[in-house]
Amino acid sequence: MSSPTSSALEQYKAQRASLIEQDYLLRRDRLPSEVSDLESEADAVIRRIRTEEAESIWSASHESIPHPFPGMEFLTGKSIIVKTRLFKILSKMPKGGLLHAHLDATVNASYLWSLALAQPAIYVSTSSVLVKETLSSTLPSFKAMPKDFQSAERSLSGDSYTPGTWVPLNAARNSFDPALGGSTGFDDWIIGSMMISPAEAYGTHNTVAKIWNKFTNTFLVAQGLTRFMPIFADYVREFLYSSIEDGISYVEPRINFLTKFMTGEDGQQDIDHKKMVRIFDGVVKEVKDKMKAEGREDEFIGAKIIYSTIRFITPEELDWYLDDCLALKKAFPHLIAGFDLVGNENSLYPLTYYLEQLLRFKERVQKEGIDLPFIFHAGETLGDGTEADQNLYDAILLGTKRIGHGFSLVKHPKLMELCRDRQIALEVCPISCVCSRLTSSMPAHPLPIILNNGVPVALSSDDPSVFGNMGLTYDFFQVLVASEVAGLSTLRTLAQDSIQFSSLEGSEKEVALRAWRARWEKFLAYIIESERDN
Amino acid sequence: MSSPTSSALEQYKAQRASLIEQDYLLRRDRLPSEVSDLESEADAVIRRIRTEEAESIWSASHESIPHPFPGMEFLTGKSIIVKTRLFKILSKMPKGGLLHAHLDATVNASYLWSLALAQPAIYVSTSSVLVKETLSSTLPSFKAMPKDFQSAERSLSGDSYTPGTWVPLNAARNSFDPALGGSTGFDDWIIGSMMISPAEAYGTHNTVAKIWNKFTNTFLVAQGLTRFMPIFADYVREFLYSSIEDGISYVEPRINFLTKFMTGEDGQQDIDHKKMVRIFDGVVKEVKDKMKAEGREDEFIGAKIIYSTIRFITPEELDWYLDDCLALKKAFPHLIAGFDLVGNENSLYPLTYYLEQLLRFKERVQKEGIDLPFIFHAGETLGDGTEADQNLYDAILLGTKRIGHGFSLVKHPKLMELCRDRQIALEVCPISCVCSRLTSSMPAHPLPIILNNGVPVALSSDDPSVFGNMGLTYDFFQVLVASEVAGLSTLRTLAQDSIQFSSLEGSEKEVALRAWRARWEKFLAYIIESERDN
Repeated sequence: MSSPTSSALEQYKAQRASLIEQDYLLRRDRLPSEVSDLESEADAVIRRIRTEEAESIWSASHESIPHPFPGMEFLTGKSIIVKTRLFKILSKMPKGGLLHAHLDATVNASYLWSLALAQPAIYVSTSSVLVKETLSSTLPSFKAMPKDFQSAERSLSGDSYTPGTWVPLNAARNSFDPALGGSTGFDDWIIGSMMISPAEAYGTHNTVAKIWNKFTNTFLVAQGLTRFMPIFADYVREFLYSSIEDGISYVEPRINFLTKFMTGEDGQQDIDHKKMVRIFDGVVKEVKDKMKAEGREDEFIGAKIIYSTIRFITPEELDWYLDDCLALKKAFPHLIAGFDLVGNENSLYPLTYYLEQLLRFKERVQKEGIDLPFIFHAGETLGDGTEADQNLYDAILLGTKRIGHGFSLVKHPKLMELCRDRQIALEVCPISCVCSRLTSSMPAHPLPIILNNGVPVALSSDDPSVFGNMGLTYDFFQVLVASEVAGLSTLRTLAQDSIQFSSLEGSEKEVALRAWRARWEKFLAYIIESERDN
Repeated sequence: MSSPTSSALEQYKAQRASLIEQDYLLRRDRLPSEVSDLESEADAVIRRIRTEEAESIWSASHESIPHPFPGMEFLTGKSIIVKTRLFKILSKMPKGGLLHAHLDATVNASYLWSLALAQPAIYVSTSSVLVKETLSSTLPSFKAMPKDFQSAERSLSGDSYTPGTWVPLNAARNSFDPALGGSTGFDDWIIGSMMISPAEAYGTHNTVAKIWNKFTNTFLVAQGLTRFMPIFADYVREFLYSSIEDGISYVEPRINFLTKFMTGEDGQQDIDHKKMVRIFDGVVKEVKDKMKAEGREDEFIGAKIIYSTIRFITPEELDWYLDDCLALKKAFPHLIAGFDLVGNENSLYPLTYYLEQLLRFKERVQKEGIDLPFIFHAGETLGDGTEADQNLYDAILLGTKRIGHGFSLVKHPKLMELCRDRQIALEVCPISCVCSRLTSSMPAHPLPIILNNGVPVALSSDDPSVFGNMGLTYDFFQVLVASEVAGLSTLRTLAQDSIQFSSLEGSEKEVALRAWRARWEKFLAYIIESERDN
């Protein structure tokens, strides 16, 4: 047979190129004017390293990790990730803002534990007697006690321990049964109760429902420590500095205000929300001042708070929290960014359950001319047409500023169009999705669908202390290695959009974007230089 | 605070209903005129049972199945599925056509094995000595020998066995080492070599790349048996009858024509493709006649063949296969439906590798006025922007009639639009995707995205003998339980579209659709009746 004419082949290739172009037309990282020569050069370096390491690192065999691949299950893959050159490079990247993280899960669990051990006011108890077989499934409870509190117990692990009795933390640690590992076993047990292990995520708790149980428990444990005022300030400070260390220049954590009071230094549970926010505000100012004094003001723009409560309260209770949020907004207008309802959407109340309250609130802030939007979690589910999935309709109809997770958004062509048109950004948390079993691994995550449909995305870590994905480097890494489409333009767009779609306002946002751009240029130069040195 | 006015609430609810309607507007199962009262009633029954069984069956604990949930990993969930009332009902459903199945994987492995044991001409060998530790990873090879063939070996498992030597099948079975399980161990080993076990899919081979290795091996083993002429006819017959038994009224298997000759009854490998297709044709006619004689002609419309070869051949070799396919089409115009290239898209050649050959072929059949379309596998991958993912562009540009799998299509907004507009149906194989680790379980499968974007779908089983999803009942079951949107309209649309988008022509298709519709009405009546009896 004769060859197809070269013109037929040429025509086909032109058609193909045009089709690919159309297919990616909506992507926010495909605005061609924005790619500088420097970025092109750095992008080529990144892509080459990715291809090389897919072979040299991800195709090699690793002890005790039977199936390595780029974008693999994070909890088992992490030890390989940190060995890569790509990870080292990304750790230097200016990440922009962190727009989806739950405050009580933002600081390394070991660090929180070291803060707790320094507080003699803290006591520990368990609801059952500790035995080796059930140790890892038994939860510690923490409570800061007044100075005059007297405990009859000095040990948590003895036969004589009466469940529910409070034991001084350091006494409990020092007397911890050697059969349970002694003080090291004690530390491992506590830290394990605040984190999700690979064995849990991929074995014992390998469904969305079961992992949520473990997940909720990690918060119960951590909050017993973080909500003690002397720890709280240190905790927030560490969150900010470790974020800065990772290249994050702005944070917008969700703070759970469900509990109406936190515990003060004197062991009294009487620190109200206003006092709590004032502490937060003070730490943010302190860090900003310190950064400025070091000439590093570009590295930290600030922080705001998304007020959150949990979606198991009654509609009447919600009214109290909405009022409380509004009062805080009036007291700290520069700090309160929005309102959210958090918790497992699959088992707790949908937004429609609170419809009257939410509509009324929306009307009220509108009338009062206050900028206090909803920033709802919605669609964090595998359900199709379930209440959790349908929360997406309500989040959008109620005017949500962004969507937390929006994992099931990709099922909804009309909603993707609305998010694109109304510029509702999705707070996408790749590693969180893998740990919570919404997706088996990064290559199965719907992020490429979201990006190809032009929906803005702010990449987020969600609960880094629980999953171990501290900072944003891990999440950016997973995105970059799981797609051949993703490159430096993608990372740039994600980082830039995390500022663009943040709650920063007017000139604040301009300053943040300008500072970020300057750092991005330095990052590109660093990539190219690191390649020359290699 | 005052309540939002009831009109504000009403307005919200109307907006919400309208948004949901728009969101699902493209779905092919939402054409409202088609839902009869009978179907509405039956749908309510199905939905009620689904809700009940989600609780009574899927939330209960099951021995050795730690995490049951609707749509769970098929290989472990199967034993629960068969206990449900929903499965029993779906087994009676008229399924329409089976448009994506590889012939050598369409008959229960145990049945194939019983056919093999009845053939004294068949010999077996292994490439290494069998020991307990490596038994399950050692592959048996089969070969039909001429009558005068003499083997020096009577046993496969003795110390004296020389790897590569052919042993008569029954002798090998009868003499199989008791330490390896004797004849039962022999049977288990062979059948295990043709199927994927839960331990393999979710443990030892838990990545797409590793499962493909095992998968390829199952075909190597099975083809040693299916491509022996006396077995081949029985095999095709059993495929047809077991499909009919499951409510499938038309099949369009892909047959792998890579090997140019199959082995005849005399042990000579000299049965060419024309003779092979003639045998297939004869069996189809025989079954049609028998069904007609029983007054059951509505239950079996017929079968066509999609000619396939493997995407590791050279472009020059492809020319031979394209010529061969065209010659078969001319000899059996009623039987040859199209042409495909099969095999692991992630590791073998992309369509672009064969571009010249494929374009030339397309031009040629067009010029000759022959209806012989491509029906390509494409996008059966987790890759984003990889060659396997990009096969979708080429499949569509080359005019594919349907797309086999198209798993990554959901990433491509423009291609989804093209498939919808040009009515290119996707052959979606849910259970295959779970077994091949493209998706962790059914709730994570992209089918809802495909349906919500109005892309036509033909639900298929792919390799039922390898995965154990014989017929189509299992696949329909998994689709129904993993979505609250899916109901009887969805099943009806999927079944109907499997005829609509088949290679049946003109009046054939009309007959098939008419017959199917009558059976669907009976199925609805059966559902309602079964509810009354319950």
